[in-house]
Amino acid sequence: MDLGGGRKRLDMGPVDRHAFQLCLPPSHLRPIDEKRAFFIAFHFLFVLLLSRSIPRYENGRRSPMETKLTGTEIREAQQRIRPFIHRTPVLTSTGINAMCGAQLFFKCENFQKAGAFKIRGACNAVFSLSDEEAEKGVATHSSGNHAAALALAARWRGIRAHVVMPENAALVKRAAAVGYGAEIVFCKPTLEAREEVLSRIVESTGATFIPPYNDLRVMAGQGTVALELVEEIPELDVVIAPVGGGGLISGTAIAVSSESPDTIVIGAEPQNADDAYRSLQSGRIISVENPSTIADGLRTSLGSLTFPVIREHVKEIITVSEEDIVKAMRCIWERMKIIVEPSGAVPLGAVFSKAEEMPGKRIGLILSGGNVDLGRLPWVR
Amino acid sequence: MDLGGGRKRLDMGPVDRHAFQLCLPPSHLRPIDEKRAFFIAFHFLFVLLLSRSIPRYENGRRSPMETKLTGTEIREAQQRIRPFIHRTPVLTSTGINAMCGAQLFFKCENFQKAGAFKIRGACNAVFSLSDEEAEKGVATHSSGNHAAALALAARWRGIRAHVVMPENAALVKRAAAVGYGAEIVFCKPTLEAREEVLSRIVESTGATFIPPYNDLRVMAGQGTVALELVEEIPELDVVIAPVGGGGLISGTAIAVSSESPDTIVIGAEPQNADDAYRSLQSGRIISVENPSTIADGLRTSLGSLTFPVIREHVKEIITVSEEDIVKAMRCIWERMKIIVEPSGAVPLGAVFSKAEEMPGKRIGLILSGGNVDLGRLPWVR
Repeated sequence: MDLGGGRKRLDMGPVDRHAFQLCLPPSHLRPIDEKRAFFIAFHFLFVLLLSRSIPRYENGRRSPMETKLTGTEIREAQQRIRPFIHRTPVLTSTGINAMCGAQLFFKCENFQKAGAFKIRGACNAVFSLSDEEAEKGVATHSSGNHAAALALAARWRGIRAHVVMPENAALVKRAAAVGYGAEIVFCKPTLEAREEVLSRIVESTGATFIPPYNDLRVMAGQGTVALELVEEIPELDVVIAPVGGGGLISGTAIAVSSESPDTIVIGAEPQNADDAYRSLQSGRIISVENPSTIADGLRTSLGSLTFPVIREHVKEIITVSEEDIVKAMRCIWERMKIIVEPSGAVPLGAVFSKAEEMPGKRIGLILSGGNVDLGRLPWVR
Repeated sequence: MDLGGGRKRLDMGPVDRHAFQLCLPPSHLRPIDEKRAFFIAFHFLFVLLLSRSIPRYENGRRSPMETKLTGTEIREAQQRIRPFIHRTPVLTSTGINAMCGAQLFFKCENFQKAGAFKIRGACNAVFSLSDEEAEKGVATHSSGNHAAALALAARWRGIRAHVVMPENAALVKRAAAVGYGAEIVFCKPTLEAREEVLSRIVESTGATFIPPYNDLRVMAGQGTVALELVEEIPELDVVIAPVGGGGLISGTAIAVSSESPDTIVIGAEPQNADDAYRSLQSGRIISVENPSTIADGLRTSLGSLTFPVIREHVKEIITVSEEDIVKAMRCIWERMKIIVEPSGAVPLGAVFSKAEEMPGKRIGLILSGGNVDLGRLPWVR
């Protein structure tokens, strides 16, 4: 069947015409008898079932969760991962509150297992697998926290984790993944090389690909951070989460809109990697190539599953200058005596850069992680 | 009376002989009649009362609390300071436990108000004052955490805090004290200059001197750290606290021996400032002058009130190399994602340096504070 080009649309066989007629205004429809009505209803049902059974592909691989992300999946994820992860504390700082004229509540995922929220999504994905799937292992590509997180979750389930890493990945990140038992395969630092190596591993081992963020199981896992936050701190006016690929912010948005619908969700993004800001402005995913920002966890662009959620549920993306990121990071270190990575300081940077809008508000901030190279601090020259 | 030289011991006047005879073997005593027995008993009682009524002077000023420090004073201090201070969390790290083969429980006073345990002692002292004493203010000498702590406690009570600081005190410490409202008077960086300036302030204002450590109210306040620790974590084999002037370790020792008598208390001290180690060895206070150690909070020597408590209740002082202090500090930053000052890392350094004795033990470690100059880290060259 060819609907394009010179052929007229109505030049179709009898079966297809029914479907097409539904697109016409009611006056064009023939009078409907009982038999036709049943036929149409059946046809509808058939198309609906068919559409749901079509595998969705993501980066050339099948997306593992077909349903839409809702609060239910996030609560299920919370139950699934609870035995393995920390319920991290929510900290406050009188000093920083005084600076901002607002009440800030920091959800401290820097204290999470493997040092970042990433373990939540990885753990939810790994423990969502059937035993048959699981025994073939899992695979991913990552040069950051997701690699270590997936390796740790796989270790908990007793299965193999294959990680494709660019040759130039930071030594400390390699060491973390290896420490948790990842089987690392290096590739050239290009998208093509990464995809090709990953495909080969998945084909040869049958391992399940667990993407770093563009995966509903991963997004549901990341949403448990905000779920815990709104459970513990009621009546927040705003929750601010950092935006990289969008796994954390999309999970956050669904959890908050489900559990605390009066709370606004805002994304915080480096000015130098403002793909989410520009994507929301233009209504389609805009990527940035190799952005230069100290917030290394936020250099990725949005995914096909995270973008629609952000568009629907995130009120605003605030972009933060490198200067404000470093200022926020140092402020958290000095005042709160905790170590946060640059990406995790971006939400406080957003509060600094919109200082005039914050006074009097109750603001939840997601401190996404604390994995930072202590030998290279931005304020030490 | 001269008991030395060529004179024989029994060549004394009649009154003195009674006292002296008690030092001789029983066979040398004359038979005692009832009248003499009464006389001796009365004499004893008189000397005892006289000795207790002598005011004890500390650095030329009268020590403010005459009673011995017991668990009761520490529990009273806990009630007194509870409305003002944080009950700090006890954190654990699976990674560090695995490194040491022991179960470590870190009592995190780096999260305390003003960034260190010092606020507990200062607060207890300030709120122990009568209203008459309090309205004349408080005064101290300190170039470190005690200055800021006393200023903050005085602010809570609504009174003035005079702080004598050497001209060369670190800018960050000055700023902290000023930030809490201290009235700072600078002096030359010598002991004499400090004493002289402080005396002048105390005389002119009537302010009460609150010493940094050699004060039973301060020691009682510091003891509340360990009290909270043993309340929360039962059946500890060991508690290790850092040793500087001895305020924290002596409070710790009394609290632990009172509330958890089976737990051993160990002091941890920089090798380069091992005055407590040497004092315990020799049985008298040995001072070190300007010791060179990164653990700036532990450069002071023991005081007349802290030393006897340490001698009685602390089982051992472990001295820690500079290398092990830095290693422990970095380990806590990297693994636990919290900022601890070098002095606060010395107890973990002690665990590292006695690695062979630790396996299997449940060890409480007092992380004394988190006030560190982030621009000057020992591992960043």
